[in-house]
Amino acid sequence: MTSSPDQRAGDAAQHVDPEVLEDLLAMRASIDNIDATLVYLLAERFKATQRVGVLKARHQLPPADPARERNQIARLKRLAEDAQLDPEFAEKFLNFIIEEVIRHHQAISASESTPDPSRPGGPREVR
Amino acid sequence: MTSSPDQRAGDAAQHVDPEVLEDLLAMRASIDNIDATLVYLLAERFKATQRVGVLKARHQLPPADPARERNQIARLKRLAEDAQLDPEFAEKFLNFIIEEVIRHHQAISASESTPDPSRPGGPREVR
Repeated sequence: MTSSPDQRAGDAAQHVDPEVLEDLLAMRASIDNIDATLVYLLAERFKATQRVGVLKARHQLPPADPARERNQIARLKRLAEDAQLDPEFAEKFLNFIIEEVIRHHQAISASESTPDPSRPGGPREVR
Repeated sequence: MTSSPDQRAGDAAQHVDPEVLEDLLAMRASIDNIDATLVYLLAERFKATQRVGVLKARHQLPPADPARERNQIARLKRLAEDAQLDPEFAEKFLNFIIEEVIRHHQAISASESTPDPSRPGGPREVR
C-alpha cells in the first residue's frame, strides 16, 4: 500500500537535479500520507451518511435537506477560513461530496421500496 | 465553530418523530466532526502542494506530472478497496483535488516568472 520513491518521482526523475528530486520526494511522501488519511476518513464519512440514508428511507424522509446543507456549507466556510483553506474551495468540495451522498441515498431509497425477492419477508420488515 | 442541534435538524425537524430526529442528530454530529477533520486535512494537503508548486516553479518543472498522477490514482484505488470506499469515487476525488492543485501551481508559476515591482530585487532572487 506504500509508494516506492521510484514511483513517487514520476516524470520529474528525468528532469531534475538529485537534490531537488530529494526535496520533491519528501514532499510527495507527506502528500501520500495525507491522501491515505483522506481516503480512510471519506470511507468513514460515507458509512455515516449510509446510516443516515437508511434512516431516511425507513421514515420516508427526502434524500436531500436544503436547510441542513446551507448550515453545513456556512460552517465549513468558517472552518476553512480558520484553516487558511480557500472557503470557495471548501464549498465546492462539500457540494462534490453531497452530490455523491444523494446518489447513494437515492439508491438506498429505491432498494428499500422495491420488493427484494432474495430477502425473506421482503424489505418492508425493516421499515 | 460548532453547529447547534437546531441547525443540524434542518428541514427534517418538521417531518420526523422525536426519537428518529434524535438518531439523525447524533449521526449528523459525527458527520460534522468528520467534515471539520477533512477541512483541516485538506488545508494541510494544499500547504504541501503549495511547497511543491514553489519548488517546481523555481526549477522550471511542469505543473502537471502524468506519471506521478497515474501512480497516485492506482495507489488510492487500492487503499479505497481496503477502506470499503468505492474506488471509482476515490479516483474522481483525487482528480477533483489535482485539478485545484494544478490551478494553484499555474498561479505560482505565473507569479514567479512575472517581475514583481513590490518586491525588492524582484522574483528572480528566490530562483
